[in-house]
Amino acid sequence: MEINFNDSFYMQRAIDLAKCGFGKTKTNPLVGCVIVKDDEIIGEGYHEEFGKNHAEVNAIEDAKSKGHSLEGATLYVNLEPCAHYGKTPPCANRIVEEKIARVVIGTTDPFKEVSGRGVEILEENGIEVVEGVLEEECLELNERFFTYVKKNRPYVVLKAGMTLDGKIATSTGESQWITSDYSRKFSHELRGKLDAIMVGINTVLADNPTLNVRYGDYPYNPIRIILDSKLRIPENSNVLRNDLDSIAIVATTKNCGRNNYERLINKKNVEILICEEKNGQVDLIDLMNKLKDYDISSILLEGGATLNASMIKEKLVDKYYFFIAPMIIGNEGLSAIGDLNIEKLKESIRLKNIKVETMFGDILVTGVD
Amino acid sequence: MEINFNDSFYMQRAIDLAKCGFGKTKTNPLVGCVIVKDDEIIGEGYHEEFGKNHAEVNAIEDAKSKGHSLEGATLYVNLEPCAHYGKTPPCANRIVEEKIARVVIGTTDPFKEVSGRGVEILEENGIEVVEGVLEEECLELNERFFTYVKKNRPYVVLKAGMTLDGKIATSTGESQWITSDYSRKFSHELRGKLDAIMVGINTVLADNPTLNVRYGDYPYNPIRIILDSKLRIPENSNVLRNDLDSIAIVATTKNCGRNNYERLINKKNVEILICEEKNGQVDLIDLMNKLKDYDISSILLEGGATLNASMIKEKLVDKYYFFIAPMIIGNEGLSAIGDLNIEKLKESIRLKNIKVETMFGDILVTGVD
Repeated sequence: MEINFNDSFYMQRAIDLAKCGFGKTKTNPLVGCVIVKDDEIIGEGYHEEFGKNHAEVNAIEDAKSKGHSLEGATLYVNLEPCAHYGKTPPCANRIVEEKIARVVIGTTDPFKEVSGRGVEILEENGIEVVEGVLEEECLELNERFFTYVKKNRPYVVLKAGMTLDGKIATSTGESQWITSDYSRKFSHELRGKLDAIMVGINTVLADNPTLNVRYGDYPYNPIRIILDSKLRIPENSNVLRNDLDSIAIVATTKNCGRNNYERLINKKNVEILICEEKNGQVDLIDLMNKLKDYDISSILLEGGATLNASMIKEKLVDKYYFFIAPMIIGNEGLSAIGDLNIEKLKESIRLKNIKVETMFGDILVTGVD
Repeated sequence: MEINFNDSFYMQRAIDLAKCGFGKTKTNPLVGCVIVKDDEIIGEGYHEEFGKNHAEVNAIEDAKSKGHSLEGATLYVNLEPCAHYGKTPPCANRIVEEKIARVVIGTTDPFKEVSGRGVEILEENGIEVVEGVLEEECLELNERFFTYVKKNRPYVVLKAGMTLDGKIATSTGESQWITSDYSRKFSHELRGKLDAIMVGINTVLADNPTLNVRYGDYPYNPIRIILDSKLRIPENSNVLRNDLDSIAIVATTKNCGRNNYERLINKKNVEILICEEKNGQVDLIDLMNKLKDYDISSILLEGGATLNASMIKEKLVDKYYFFIAPMIIGNEGLSAIGDLNIEKLKESIRLKNIKVETMFGDILVTGVD
């Protein structure tokens, strides 16, 4: 494909707009749209919130509200325009109606009702379509959405703040703070961008965290998911605070005990989710299935060694964020990742698409499974 | 100080020349020298080998052999010229004799017989002296030498090739290979640059390594130091091969057993070094002291968890090289660093001067204690 630098420029703007939807689109993708005529942006928009207008419609309305005609314009959008009647009418048809001449797309939509069909409608109506502009960036932007659709379960990001020797706390459990202030702010941004945050009961009992977003410009706190097979969670735990704008889901098993269940079942903003049991713990695959009922498409996993290892063993971790402080604690410290039953190097978890950044004293390593 | 870009340029050349001495200068510093007249390099030299000419003399001889007069020239050298009669006469006096007009120095010499005195001699004789050009680079170049002089023991570099979760082998001991081919070549360069390489007996028994330099352009193999308090080392271990150009030192204690001692004492190129005992192991502080008799100013520590931790606890590690492969093994794997008896984060080992590089798939993190 011949590279058109203007196309890349406007697509980047669409991506930047799409990111304004972080934390608000739930199971919908992040989409931004820019409409250009005579090399001037005449309309912009993004998918602002789950269930509301698609980005294309917002950009079209923006242009029209400023008195522009869309005839002959070029529309840039990071994801293929939809062709189905969902919560809103199909965008592909709207683009045709508005006599837009050219549509530039980042990635095609993996939804089977949509994939390729949006492009078909446009081309059948004589619109020039260009695909794959900044495709890699567009794929990364919506990696959670694509995973959610393809794997039919939430996209899971494992985050650990650890030492160079892979420890998240000393032998006495002291973990505040291993990583820098800046790394922790960045972690809060991750919380703001994902639908839910998940921890094990041991983390709740040891640290009594609130798991809210205390940094960054995000409208909602993530849903808090606590894995607690025996429902040992104290009613006054910070994580069950009912003054936050999101619910807490306590995932447990049928062995949680009737008294424990009744103690918690009427608590405001708290849901008790009974899952299948596996080796005395919550069956993680079953939990992932059940979480779809809550429109959770992405989860930030902030577990201890055991939960992190269990999620890895079930192949439920899609992306890793390791914030590494240049510090050594030694082997009695608590590990970020527990036992994985790996005996041979060829069985090890090898991360791909590694990115390394230095972060005001820490090192951030990200990778995908 | 006003920055003179020509001064930085020629000092960088001196540093590059100094590096040609890597692996050959033993307890002497790495020194390079450039002599410049009318903005042209007329002589160059470096300290080529322990006991041979200093860099300044080599550069002066180089210029004279080409028919140049040194009168009025500028001399660049990364370390203050010596003022004492050691294995060679003082360089400061030679510079005066040659009527050099200006001397540009990277760092002053920490040797108490020398420090500042070289500069004094030059200035007393009307030579203009500029100090501190590329000082940071010059300090780093000779960090091993400065440590050796200041701490009165060898400079120790801990090197570990490990996973993101801090493991150097699987639970079954498989370690070949965690890091990339490129990282391992880089490790061999470290071996070539340092005087000695140190491992514990368990590494010898598990991996039977040769510990020679198999990559890079270095003239000597490092001295191999094996910590073996009970002299369990098999006589036919690769590490005791007598066809290498360096000796092997087996550090042990008086409890090594007479038979074991006699079994090894007449082996060619093998030295048995009886050290004090501490908790049943070789006393590391005593070992460091005794190694000075072998002109060892720097050691590459390639230990397992226990030896690495023991060296850290004795505050004997000066620099760390962690080659981190983007891989996860889990907590049954063997750790790079063993128990350090650290209960509080404030007691943790915090590395300074962190540098992070990506290395063909691995991440290299270096830092100093």
